[in-house]
Amino acid sequence: MVDVSLESIKSNSQKRISTLNGDVLHVLKCSDIDFKKFGEIYFSWIEKGSIKAWKKHKRMTMNIVVPFGKVKFVFFDENSQTYRNEEIGEDNYLRLTIPPGLWFGFKDMTENRSLITNIADIEHDDNEVDRLDINEIKYDWNN
Amino acid sequence: MVDVSLESIKSNSQKRISTLNGDVLHVLKCSDIDFKKFGEIYFSWIEKGSIKAWKKHKRMTMNIVVPFGKVKFVFFDENSQTYRNEEIGEDNYLRLTIPPGLWFGFKDMTENRSLITNIADIEHDDNEVDRLDINEIKYDWNN
Repeated sequence: MVDVSLESIKSNSQKRISTLNGDVLHVLKCSDIDFKKFGEIYFSWIEKGSIKAWKKHKRMTMNIVVPFGKVKFVFFDENSQTYRNEEIGEDNYLRLTIPPGLWFGFKDMTENRSLITNIADIEHDDNEVDRLDINEIKYDWNN
Repeated sequence: MVDVSLESIKSNSQKRISTLNGDVLHVLKCSDIDFKKFGEIYFSWIEKGSIKAWKKHKRMTMNIVVPFGKVKFVFFDENSQTYRNEEIGEDNYLRLTIPPGLWFGFKDMTENRSLITNIADIEHDDNEVDRLDINEIKYDWNN
């Protein structure tokens, strides 16, 4: 059993620098306290109102930002059988640092679509990902 | 004088994995041949039809992708007094790797706005950036 809890998810605001022709948004620096190692960065689009759930990483620490749109992330700790959720996006521009060992799913909260960016400390490896169908963890996605 | 040329800019297609609820887009892995070191990642929005120009990095290697919108990048080599341009975006999803020593500027090519992502090998440092006003390097941005 991985020693992890919902309190170990960190939420950090990141600087947004306004400029006339378009804002600059900080994401992650190698000197940030939450930076461990660079493995891979990838984007996930999530279409209007859609849900992607559930996954659990055995080894990957994720750093998640949503520069476009709005996404509700739901985390589930199977040890304590408790949930935590975080709604982040362009208007609540936070970086979430998520340790391995927690189940998570996410839902687009817009009338359009959202772009999620994950900066992970390891490269993608299907062997370190557990998956469950959406109905295998009870959660009311409409609440 | 930095030994650099427009040919040293690399352009690599990155995988897009289609899924029902939104595509996944690869960006950069630590095992990629063009990956040097992780310094910082940040986003730059560029508003409809706007231009940001000119900058030159003395030390930073940039890895640039445009997951949303379409952006024309223009590179200028002051040694050879030659230009190169690359239009990348959601419909031409390439990663550009740009060594230090070249002037660059960019323009939004949409009716909306575009999101640029830079994964840089060093953290931002104003001392390693040279800047010129848009008119100080001749380029017809309407061509």
